[in-house]
Parts: sequence; C-alpha cells; structure tokens
Amino acid sequence: MNPTIGILGGGQLGLMLIQAGIDWNLAIHCLDPDPQASCKDLCTRFMVGSLTDYDTVYQFGQGVDVLTIEIEKVNVDALEALEREGKRVYPQPGVIRQIQDKRIQKAFFREHNLPTADFVLTNNRADVARIAGEQPDLLPAFHKLGRDGYDGRGVQRIATPADADKAFDAPGVLEKAVDFSKELAVIVARNERGELQTFPTVEMVFHPELNLVDYLFAPADITPEVDEQAQTLARRTAEAFGIVGLLAVELFLDNSGPGGAPQVLLNEVAPRPHNSGHHTIRANRTSQFEQHWRAILNLPLGDTTAHGPAAMINLLGEPGHTGPAVYEGLETLLAMPGVSPFFYGKAQTRPGRKMGHITVLDDSLDGLREKADVVKKNIRVVSNLTA
Amino acid sequence: MNPTIGILGGGQLGLMLIQAGIDWNLAIHCLDPDPQASCKDLCTRFMVGSLTDYDTVYQFGQGVDVLTIEIEKVNVDALEALEREGKRVYPQPGVIRQIQDKRIQKAFFREHNLPTADFVLTNNRADVARIAGEQPDLLPAFHKLGRDGYDGRGVQRIATPADADKAFDAPGVLEKAVDFSKELAVIVARNERGELQTFPTVEMVFHPELNLVDYLFAPADITPEVDEQAQTLARRTAEAFGIVGLLAVELFLDNSGPGGAPQVLLNEVAPRPHNSGHHTIRANRTSQFEQHWRAILNLPLGDTTAHGPAAMINLLGEPGHTGPAVYEGLETLLAMPGVSPFFYGKAQTRPGRKMGHITVLDDSLDGLREKADVVKKNIRVVSNLTA
Repeated sequence: MNPTIGILGGGQLGLMLIQAGIDWNLAIHCLDPDPQASCKDLCTRFMVGSLTDYDTVYQFGQGVDVLTIEIEKVNVDALEALEREGKRVYPQPGVIRQIQDKRIQKAFFREHNLPTADFVLTNNRADVARIAGEQPDLLPAFHKLGRDGYDGRGVQRIATPADADKAFDAPGVLEKAVDFSKELAVIVARNERGELQTFPTVEMVFHPELNLVDYLFAPADITPEVDEQAQTLARRTAEAFGIVGLLAVELFLDNSGPGGAPQVLLNEVAPRPHNSGHHTIRANRTSQFEQHWRAILNLPLGDTTAHGPAAMINLLGEPGHTGPAVYEGLETLLAMPGVSPFFYGKAQTRPGRKMGHITVLDDSLDGLREKADVVKKNIRVVSNLTA
Repeated sequence: MNPTIGILGGGQLGLMLIQAGIDWNLAIHCLDPDPQASCKDLCTRFMVGSLTDYDTVYQFGQGVDVLTIEIEKVNVDALEALEREGKRVYPQPGVIRQIQDKRIQKAFFREHNLPTADFVLTNNRADVARIAGEQPDLLPAFHKLGRDGYDGRGVQRIATPADADKAFDAPGVLEKAVDFSKELAVIVARNERGELQTFPTVEMVFHPELNLVDYLFAPADITPEVDEQAQTLARRTAEAFGIVGLLAVELFLDNSGPGGAPQVLLNEVAPRPHNSGHHTIRANRTSQFEQHWRAILNLPLGDTTAHGPAAMINLLGEPGHTGPAVYEGLETLLAMPGVSPFFYGKAQTRPGRKMGHITVLDDSLDGLREKADVVKKNIRVVSNLTA
C-alpha cells in the first residue's frame, strides 16, 4: 500500500495529486524544471530538472516504485526503459506516446472506429496549403501542431485556403472544424485489473480568444441519450488505449448523426488529471485526483457520484497584466456560500495563465449559473506592475 | 492574503490543516517535538522542538505572521509575549489558557451560566476522598485531571467514596456523571470581526473502554428542539470565550430539564479542529479545517451545509498490537462506494492510538449505519511484531 511515487511535473495538477495523496500518506517525489514549481514544499522530495531529458527522467524514476505524470510532454524513451526494467509506470509509456502526438492520436481514433472529425495528416505548411486547395470540404478547419501544443497554443484556424500561411510549418493535423452545439468531457479511470469507472459528463465553455476552458458545468445540460453516447464513447476510448490511470476525454456534440440527430465526436484526450475535472474535488464523492491514485495503485476505483450540481471557473491571468499576481475581488468571492477558490501558488501572472480555479456548488442549476456569473464578474488576477 | 503561518503541533490535525491550506497556497511552518511527525514533509518549514518550552515557542513564533495551534498543551506564556508584541495569535493565548486547564474551563462555564454538570474543584486525592464522603449526591462522578488530559487519559470514574483512591493526586475537577442518552458535538467558528458560523450537530458514540470517539453520525438523530438547544449553547459558549478560530463544543443530552424534558449540557470544549469534525472534509461544503483558516485569517466564514448524511469511524490501534502498523481489510473498504479512509502517517501502532479515520457517505441514514458497521467489522490496525 505504501510505495514511493514519482510525479513528472510539479505544477497545479501535481499539487492537487499531492493534496489527495495526503489522505493515504503517500510518499511523493516531484520532478519539475522550475525551482519555484507549485509542489516544491509539499512533497517528500523535490527535484529540479528537465522532464524531456532522458537521463534526468531515467534517474528520477530509479528513486521511486511507481512513476506517473501530470503533463504529457515528458521523455517517453526513458519511461519505456524504466518500464522494461520492471518499474510500474502509469499511464503506460506507450499510451503517453500515442497521445502526446496529436497525429498519432487522431490516427488511433480512426483505426479504432472512434467517431471523430474528418482530418488529414500534414508534414508542413505547404501540405496544408495544398490540401486546403484540393479538399474545400475540409474547411473551415483547425491546423493543430502534432507535438507540444498546450493550453490553447499550437492551434490555428484555417477558414479558407488563403489562411494556410498561418498554418504551422511542422508535422500536424488539419482537422475539419466541428459545428458543435456543446463541448463535453468525460473523465475515465481504469486500473491494472481492467476495472473502469467514469465521472459524470460535464459541459465546457471555452474562452472565445484564449482557447482555454473558461468555465464548466456539471452535470452537462444534455438529454439522457446524448449522455449515454458521451459516456459510452469515453469508455470505448479508454478501453481502446488500455490505459491504466485517468483518461480525460474531450468531446464535441453536433447534429451530424443520421437525419441530423445529435452526435458525439471525440475531440482529443489527455492521459492524466484534467482541467475538466477540478470541480470533482468539491463536488463528487471521489475526486479525479484520488481516482488517479486508485487507478495507478491498482486499488478499487472510487464512487464518482456527484453531491449536486457544480460549476468550475478557471482563474486566468487578466489580459495586459504581467508580473507579481494580485487577486482582486477575493473577499466578495469568499463570502458567497458554496464558492471555493483554489490558487496554484504561481507568483507571476501572465495574460491567460491558469492561476487557479473556483468551484461553485448550488442545489439548483439556475442558482449555480447565477453564482458562476457573479464569480466571473468579481474576480480578476492582475499585477500592480502593469506598464 | 498570503501571510506565513505557524502551527504549534504537526500531528494529524496539523496535517489536515495543511491539506486544506493547499487550496489557498498558504505558507505553513510546523513545530513538533517528533522528528517523524505527520506534517514533516508537507510544510514550507518543519522544526523539531518542544511545544511547552518558552524559548522554542517564542522563537518559532518570531518566524511567522500568524500563529495557531493543533493541540492545547503549548507554552501559553510565550504566546502571550508574542501577542503583546503584536503577533496575530489565534486562538488567543488567553482562551487557550482558560481551556487547557479543565478547572478554569468548568469555572468559566459556571460563571457564564452555561449549563454543565455539577462539579467541585479539587486540589489533591485527599480532597476527592473528603468531597466524595461529604457530597454523596455528586456520585457517581468523574475525576478529571486539570491539565494535560488527552485522548481519554486523565479521567477516572468515582462511583463510591471508596473509589477515591483512584483519583488523581493533583489539581482536578470532580464532576457529577451525567446520565446522558446521547453525546453531541457542535463545531463553532468565529472570526476577528465577530462573525460566527456553526457546523451541523453530530452524535458521537464513544469506545466503551478507551474513552475515545469510536464513531459519529452527522446529522445527529435528535429532535429540532434539541438541535436548537445544542446549536444555541455552542454559539453562546463561543461568544462567551470570544474565541477567534474554531471551538469544538462537546455536549451531553439527558432528561434533566423541567419535568424530565430533554436538556443539553456542556461537557467540554477544545479551541481547535476536532475529531468530531473530520467527516466535514468529505461531507460538507466547507471542512472544519478550511473554516479554521477562514476564521484565523479574518476571512468570511464558509458555508457549512452538509452534502448528505455521513458517518466517521476512528481507526484505532488494535488492543494487544504495538509496533509497525499494518492495515487489514483495506481492499474491502476501498471497494465500498462512499467510503474514504484517511491515514495519519504514523509508522507505529499502539492499542487505542488514533491511526486514521474513515468517512462514510450514503443517501440514507439506514444505509449509512449499515456501511459503518461493515467498515468497523472489516478494518483493523495491527502489527506483525505482536508478542
């Protein structure tokens, strides 16, 4: 029950994993390139080093019994070497490899008949220009960088062939834009013995410019049939990968089904705790973070029942503000019943930087939306050092 | 919003305070005499030292902005010196002083007309023998050590004058035993600006031999009238002390009211997070630990609404087992929906030692009792090194 665990990455997801691990007295080591990472004072051992360097990851892995990640951009070769030597690495390095490159991820969806938007793999900008010209049906589309896109970076909208000069001049995927009515997400957990458990489907509202989750509602406001489609597709996807750990499955809902019926499509997946599950800390019997531990330690998965409706609002750095972070409106927020802020301990704010999140609970969906609006209007992360 | 906080004590209460403090990125220093204390790896700074030594506490306090406690047995003189120098010390040293001696505590109840069992202050064993002989109406009674009683230690039952030889030969209080039907508890929070908030009343069932909370149910199975009495008495008590922080108020319910009516009496109080509030981590919108931070940082107090019925079971070291702790029955427990264990990270078990607790959630009170029984039957903290 009490192995030493290593987390690659010491940011907010690592922080919330550590917080959940306190319940079980888990001994946790963290590796992060930033000496000021959120986790630095909260783990048994904190090491500063590159997550993408073979030797650093390999040596870090030698010091622990079980290795996991809070970010996909890690040296998978080192993880595979550790796995070959018998180390427990979850999610499996093979799964991280499939997911960390959006090209392989999309091809995997197609290969496993998992419904997803139409796409073409591209090698460079010239490819995008050519395909945009040859396949007008694919437009409007998004050009996504194969590797290293993160938090809304690495995505470009290509509406017409003329937009191809905004495409990345690197391997990517040109994906037909889905005319969705909603974006949904389901977090799936799967343990070594193949037991599988999902969290209730949530509905995400994205920031119009930043391409980041702005806020989410749980449960999603969808019909039972759509919910069933979403839950089934998420489960099928996790089974197809055979992942051990969490799989966050982001979905589109559109009307592309037979006769214009609602259809759920895979958008993308992440093999780790995810922004779309932060509300579960406050709103569900088991949080996504506890569920991650249960999954990778091959323990029975936890009960994901929600206490009631919840909203989660990302606390993003205000546009135009860079420097030491100041949180405006905190007092108002803390005085609202059922409103719980979570700060990630990042000293510096930048426009759109994820600085924290706020969970809102209410007995009714209407009350929830009202409170979420008040929260969004009242809190701002700014810096006094604004030029 | 981001002061450096010091906690006197680094045991399980400190651990749960730190866990709640992660949400707000609180910088926390801990002082504990045990180099292996639960908090050692989870705070910004961990110092080993005596909590009762003036210089140690005084110097520890110099390094922080706000000072608090997780145990009453601390050097109050040092805290008062720090308070005089303008340090924020919550709960206030004066309140800790009143509560840490059960003699002063009981006298305080009487002085403020807070209903409590009849009692006589005693200076030594001879006093107890004399009073037991002179005031037979006071028997059966409990003789409680004035200072340093903890977790069931420092209490002796005096049923007849002959039992007086079991009394403590030190200052104490001889208190008439209450013929109670239930033991209740209410946790009150109060901040600097005098805002006050209570948690729902819980019902505690004590271990018949160890005089420790064995398990509790929330909410208590009592009438609205009794609940109102309990909540009002708890509020009045917190107001009387003028405490800033948490006050855990333990209560007896008997039939000593006019005409045999139900009557709620004060048993004792603790100026800190308390065993009777551990379930709030899982079962309420705000936990007692978050509420402690809100209270001592003079922030608006949180919403204490419960998600639903909950039980909390203390995980006590099995009689006859001393040595490295082994947890039997964990797998069964983790497989039960709505059952969440919390381990305190104590390497060694001893008979009756608090090793952790288990929170149980269920939609119905009956389902809850059933699950709690299964949990209690299935988990044991033992040691393989048993003689």
